[in-house]
Amino acid sequence: MGEDILKGLKDRDPRGIARAISLVEENDPLTDRILSSLDDSLVDSALVLGITGPPGAGKSTLTDRIISRYRSQGRRVGVVAIDPTSPISGGAILGDRIRMMGHALDKDVIVRSMATRGRLGGLCAAAGAAVRIFAGSGCSVVIIETVGVGQSEMDIVRLADITVLVLAPGLGDDIQAMKAGLLEVADIVAVNKSDLEGAETLAMDIETIARGSTGDVEHPAKVCMTVASEGKGLDDLLQAIETVEAAHRKSGERRMRRDRAYDLEVLDWAVEMMKPSIIKRIESTDHDRKGDPRLLASKLLEQE
Amino acid sequence: MGEDILKGLKDRDPRGIARAISLVEENDPLTDRILSSLDDSLVDSALVLGITGPPGAGKSTLTDRIISRYRSQGRRVGVVAIDPTSPISGGAILGDRIRMMGHALDKDVIVRSMATRGRLGGLCAAAGAAVRIFAGSGCSVVIIETVGVGQSEMDIVRLADITVLVLAPGLGDDIQAMKAGLLEVADIVAVNKSDLEGAETLAMDIETIARGSTGDVEHPAKVCMTVASEGKGLDDLLQAIETVEAAHRKSGERRMRRDRAYDLEVLDWAVEMMKPSIIKRIESTDHDRKGDPRLLASKLLEQE
Repeated sequence: MGEDILKGLKDRDPRGIARAISLVEENDPLTDRILSSLDDSLVDSALVLGITGPPGAGKSTLTDRIISRYRSQGRRVGVVAIDPTSPISGGAILGDRIRMMGHALDKDVIVRSMATRGRLGGLCAAAGAAVRIFAGSGCSVVIIETVGVGQSEMDIVRLADITVLVLAPGLGDDIQAMKAGLLEVADIVAVNKSDLEGAETLAMDIETIARGSTGDVEHPAKVCMTVASEGKGLDDLLQAIETVEAAHRKSGERRMRRDRAYDLEVLDWAVEMMKPSIIKRIESTDHDRKGDPRLLASKLLEQE
Repeated sequence: MGEDILKGLKDRDPRGIARAISLVEENDPLTDRILSSLDDSLVDSALVLGITGPPGAGKSTLTDRIISRYRSQGRRVGVVAIDPTSPISGGAILGDRIRMMGHALDKDVIVRSMATRGRLGGLCAAAGAAVRIFAGSGCSVVIIETVGVGQSEMDIVRLADITVLVLAPGLGDDIQAMKAGLLEVADIVAVNKSDLEGAETLAMDIETIARGSTGDVEHPAKVCMTVASEGKGLDDLLQAIETVEAAHRKSGERRMRRDRAYDLEVLDWAVEMMKPSIIKRIESTDHDRKGDPRLLASKLLEQE
């Protein structure tokens, strides 16, 4: 079976690619062979695009449109869709993903959902591996789509070369309150549903926050107005992505982000590898679960 | 300075409590002394209440009302508010917290915000320590409020004895899609803003999902209709919390959850303690950041 999957991956077959990602996610013994088999130069040259934003902003619809654009350029697209739902009640995942079904019959659009819950961790490692596998299998664009509200979801964005934050008017106070935090990760902000009331105000707010938060922002996020459901503003958005990518390549920012992402992945793998032995030690230690848990943690670590 | 803080904590002084939580969050050398100084029986007997839900559901307003109820019973309340925003642009935190300001002058309501971002991890350890410090300082109710969308935020809920999921009608498709995942962590669902259209349908949906998701649900989440802004439905909600707590104490579920939470905290502390040495190894290793990051992680771990 192992050889089949490695062959499928080598042949860049969509099913082989999907299967390889699953195996790595399950930390299968084949993991290292899969990850070592990838063409580094392809991984290095792909565009890794993060698309994030709060629920209700229209991320999936926008992602769908972006995919269409890259497809019309003849590029193969891989999508890692991080789902803030559990694998147990998987219906929720489908619900959200259904919007990407416009590409369901296109073998050059490969969508892979990853649940954030129901796992002990290692989401960064698993998502990073999926990006590698997609890119190494000829996807010259890899999109990481994630709900930008939680910690791990935001960390995932660090795997991207460029991040598009999707916002929309009228999302309520809570979302408004998060805006500043969300803006820190954005290279480009898509003010989606820009035909709705409040879009101009939102765009101005973003400009103010983006320029003002640290005082010395050299490259504040570029704002694009979009109406994803009607395909409006996509030219602008794609152009902005291209411009930012070119600038980052020139300035060395892209290399810096890639290196940081690589180190994050290594750290995440290392932590995942160590957890089972720690859990074993916790379980096999006679403790009454009272008092300082930190003290118990240090004692357990001394038992090498 | 150390003795002052330990004395402040012993005297159950709000400022001493807040300072102690900060020190633990910063992993100060005093951490173990702080955590060891707490009265285990107080920690054990406190009610740890998780309040979670998507943005826009009205969590903060409902939390505010719940606090008032417990205060009217003469109970001291500690609140750990997990903020999905960055500590850098701290304005966002204030924005959301402002709704709890009704208790700003009450020295028996102590609110502590924790940012999920801008830290390498250890949120579970830090939040667990805050719960311990609050409970050990005489807060017989400790509330953990968190936006239930991200992975780590949902994990935090595992620190609670009982979890209230706050939902509201009209939150959009994305939130609706998350409902099933969110329901898995809930003991009680507050359908807030229940004066709005769609509240009854939402409540019925929840009943259906709660009963249907695994087939053998022994205790499906109890649904309460609330209008937090008007204080409606609070009697019911508080009653539901009391009923569930009594049932969990009787069945042993409470003990089981506490034990699980304790082990999670130990694991989180252990991981945090090991990370610096792994990061050091990553940084001091000569690597070209190409190829399989998992392989590099295993190599680094072998260098003991």
